[in-house]
Amino acid sequence: MWWESRGLRSGDVARVNRRITIATRPVGLPKVSDFQLVYSPLPSPAAGEVLVRSVYLSLEPNQRRRMNEGGVQDRPVAIGEVMTGAAVAFVLESEDPALQAGDAVEGTLGWQEFAVAKGRDLKRIDHLLAPISTALGVLGVPGLTALFGLGICDPQPGETVVVSWATGGVGMLAGQIAKIKGCRVVGVAGHDVEISWLLDELGFDAAINDEIAEDFHGGLAALCPDGIDVYFDNVGGVTTDEVMRLINVNSRIAVCGQISQESLERPELGPRWLGQLIVKQAKLQGFRASAYAERFPEGLAQLARWLKQGRLQYREDIAHGIESAPQAFIAMLKGKNKGEQLVQLAGF
Amino acid sequence: MWWESRGLRSGDVARVNRRITIATRPVGLPKVSDFQLVYSPLPSPAAGEVLVRSVYLSLEPNQRRRMNEGGVQDRPVAIGEVMTGAAVAFVLESEDPALQAGDAVEGTLGWQEFAVAKGRDLKRIDHLLAPISTALGVLGVPGLTALFGLGICDPQPGETVVVSWATGGVGMLAGQIAKIKGCRVVGVAGHDVEISWLLDELGFDAAINDEIAEDFHGGLAALCPDGIDVYFDNVGGVTTDEVMRLINVNSRIAVCGQISQESLERPELGPRWLGQLIVKQAKLQGFRASAYAERFPEGLAQLARWLKQGRLQYREDIAHGIESAPQAFIAMLKGKNKGEQLVQLAGF
Repeated sequence: MWWESRGLRSGDVARVNRRITIATRPVGLPKVSDFQLVYSPLPSPAAGEVLVRSVYLSLEPNQRRRMNEGGVQDRPVAIGEVMTGAAVAFVLESEDPALQAGDAVEGTLGWQEFAVAKGRDLKRIDHLLAPISTALGVLGVPGLTALFGLGICDPQPGETVVVSWATGGVGMLAGQIAKIKGCRVVGVAGHDVEISWLLDELGFDAAINDEIAEDFHGGLAALCPDGIDVYFDNVGGVTTDEVMRLINVNSRIAVCGQISQESLERPELGPRWLGQLIVKQAKLQGFRASAYAERFPEGLAQLARWLKQGRLQYREDIAHGIESAPQAFIAMLKGKNKGEQLVQLAGF
Repeated sequence: MWWESRGLRSGDVARVNRRITIATRPVGLPKVSDFQLVYSPLPSPAAGEVLVRSVYLSLEPNQRRRMNEGGVQDRPVAIGEVMTGAAVAFVLESEDPALQAGDAVEGTLGWQEFAVAKGRDLKRIDHLLAPISTALGVLGVPGLTALFGLGICDPQPGETVVVSWATGGVGMLAGQIAKIKGCRVVGVAGHDVEISWLLDELGFDAAINDEIAEDFHGGLAALCPDGIDVYFDNVGGVTTDEVMRLINVNSRIAVCGQISQESLERPELGPRWLGQLIVKQAKLQGFRASAYAERFPEGLAQLARWLKQGRLQYREDIAHGIESAPQAFIAMLKGKNKGEQLVQLAGF
């Protein structure tokens, strides 16, 4: 068994499940006290279900929205319910003939060490292809989000592509894919140190700090002397306002995330720029990777090929232990993570 | 000669040209005193040019932007220069072999009674097809704007389409084309009287006044029980904010105009709704009809067919005399016009 190589047997694992639930609905940026660490007995799988032990949790900005009450498409996480999120895990016990103990799987397993899930809701991972954590990053939803989101914009060789939150799990990949497409890529990030990572390691053509730059508009304009043809937005807010002032005629904008707006205590007002979209005849599209589910196999094959060819780099920012998830989540919401934010669980 | 039927001969017309120039750059909504009526001698056409006498001027919201200094794609009209705008006219003298005296033409001739223009910049009008004024409306740029703008949204039978400023020159046509496409059409306008026109004459399914309705959001929501699939926006501002709250998954938005924003003394702030576009996976596109210039012949043929079949109604709001243009323009910018806003010039 794959997990036996890590010295584990089904009987060895503690019969206690540590889980993080929502204690109170956060106002604005969540606090650690909005979460609660609870201990529960291990559940048993019924017919068609499996018991899994999670190895990595993935912390994603869109999970923040699931903490709010209503007003969104996805069901909010209830008070006292385990916080939602994707994880990679090993099957410990299976009552689903399609899976067996030792299989590596990915699914929405929540912030907990063990979970019972329906076998059909899990995706089996080929652990020979790449490290299993990549199923939560470059070979998972973040990679597919970057690929299909940038695809909306149909970037052409020589065009200027701006990626906001370029050091995040999706942004770092979107920028690199734009480079593969032959574009001039400008990354926006909130840290000077991270900016050099974009330039030196990921091959971005330019990068700028939107948090501490005194004149972000002037700086961005200087880095985009031919204007902006494509914008991959993970951030929104004033960063996006400034990008809008620099877009070219026939520019395309893919709106992936609005991290700057997710944790505001009250909604922020901003300049109205629809008139600019008319003048520039610009296209803008909000998207979710799930809309491209039918093309996921093709997308994953493409991402795996680039990864194997060394054309895609990735970085994981790994917190350790389920108890570290709330703090790591809050730091990620502040844009403090360096690449894909994961939590590696105890025992692995 | 066509114009002879109106009792005119080339020698009869006054040898004085009355023109409206920009006296001062307006701040916010223009005032009549921002314009000036000037008298000039008639110009003479050089080789390749024609002298024309205009019959109708068209007053369009986008002309407001041309009064501002810079910051837009089109060159601003200079102080002392004739105000820009399209007109239909008859050729009086021709130095272009392709045109002859008596031909009816359409072009950007400005706010003046006579003009000299290059023959190649003018479009000959078939005056047997429809009244020549329609070259400035249903069979002109407004019609093409409605047709191709709505086309961006690919409206499907049974979908709910909302058109803002539905009583304007473009809006009245966009709504009717959506009806032809089998959609449920909800018009937004600023007058209760006009709303009944939309319902009784143009066949809109519902209409609402966004200016005096006490609870515009609640009213719009009640008129769109299945949400909004397509939005054709001529207005922007709070009207658009409220529409955004009601859009469906996979909705499409064509941004044609932002009349509510064109004459503000200072830019207005508004809620940020890009997050809503993500949740709804919505597409939004700013557009100009000129992007579809290659398809104009096809588009005009379609519009003419619908007009002949009685499936398209149109209304013209006609002011009289060049001196009435500034006041009519200001009223149009306030949304007070009823259909396509024209100025009929003296002698016709």
